[in-house]
Amino acid sequence: MTITITAFERSPDGGKGLARDTRVRWALEEVGQPYQVRLVSFAAMKAPAHLALHPFGQIPTYEEGDLALFETGAIVLHIGERHAGLLPTDANARARAITWMFAAVNTVEPPILELVTARILEADKPWSNERMPLVEERVRGRLAQLSARLGDADWLDGAFSAGDLMMVSVLLRLRPSGILDAFPNLAAYVARGEARPAYQRAFAAQLAVNVGHRREPT
Amino acid sequence: MTITITAFERSPDGGKGLARDTRVRWALEEVGQPYQVRLVSFAAMKAPAHLALHPFGQIPTYEEGDLALFETGAIVLHIGERHAGLLPTDANARARAITWMFAAVNTVEPPILELVTARILEADKPWSNERMPLVEERVRGRLAQLSARLGDADWLDGAFSAGDLMMVSVLLRLRPSGILDAFPNLAAYVARGEARPAYQRAFAAQLAVNVGHRREPT
Repeated sequence: MTITITAFERSPDGGKGLARDTRVRWALEEVGQPYQVRLVSFAAMKAPAHLALHPFGQIPTYEEGDLALFETGAIVLHIGERHAGLLPTDANARARAITWMFAAVNTVEPPILELVTARILEADKPWSNERMPLVEERVRGRLAQLSARLGDADWLDGAFSAGDLMMVSVLLRLRPSGILDAFPNLAAYVARGEARPAYQRAFAAQLAVNVGHRREPT
Repeated sequence: MTITITAFERSPDGGKGLARDTRVRWALEEVGQPYQVRLVSFAAMKAPAHLALHPFGQIPTYEEGDLALFETGAIVLHIGERHAGLLPTDANARARAITWMFAAVNTVEPPILELVTARILEADKPWSNERMPLVEERVRGRLAQLSARLGDADWLDGAFSAGDLMMVSVLLRLRPSGILDAFPNLAAYVARGEARPAYQRAFAAQLAVNVGHRREPT
């Protein structure tokens, strides 16, 4: 069955790979599944046809036969459950990999999203400069804990898994802030993720859309 | 095998059920699995023994034989995968239920956590009053979308699932703000969750710890 995902017609980041379709593309590349992409404009994302697929009017979505999913974490988990390459076969190791997926989106990402909001949506507010150190400190606190756990390992729990895919993707959002550089083992961890051929293919595919080198099926 | 979870020795909410062990207790009650609770103090949560279980120094954790998990979403999913009662058996319906679990923690909870942070950690900051409407508006935006999707259904996708357990738990955090009352179908949805016997047992168990009526195994 054909897999179809949605992505921004024009990503707000101009193709830096931070839009969440990159996470799904990366997962599909890791397991070697071909996919089609339907590009959606900002207006179309808030229209009934897209809201029927994604109640929060975002990308990506995932369609495969009569299955329609939204939420990047759920899509990556679904891909990992259906195809080898993202989740360990040992039951306990698999449960731990899924734990890192949830840790990425529910423990590490929230303070990072708050930082992104503070830098973008609240940059012009009168409190912006005074509040920023507080927001950055919350991010650093989380990173210190993550850095302590990772130590000098390559990945969070044994071999690369969907947990690492999600965590690297979440940490990538921090690059513009420079905060990641204060944690050399996390910076190296992110670089290891980016160096994976599957990530490279995913990144190139989303970049091609945004620089207009290639038109994906619509 | 005995299931052991961790919970606050003394919850910051005094037993209102907002600490995340309630979510895990609820899941275990839904599937009828007995469990033991090890209470941890704030100091113990940041000590090496607990950090080995939970790298971010929080509760709950989940131990069963040689499996140790953290992250509420991952624990609830694990319980749902091992025992009937939280996830549909149909593969597509199951994937959609998991989608709602991720939507709860990654799309609906982040603005709610930001509101909690603004009300508690930043209440004494000079920007607090001026910034609050902005933070509340982000929560309302998400709730409006969720309310539109729920419509007049009892649960988010067919029968009650782990997706509803997580979403109701996330929305419960909003009760003190009064924001939930502006969305009657969401307020009724949360009340339906709270009325479930399994939730009632979970709530009572965490309350008993906090009011000191009962000492759980340590």
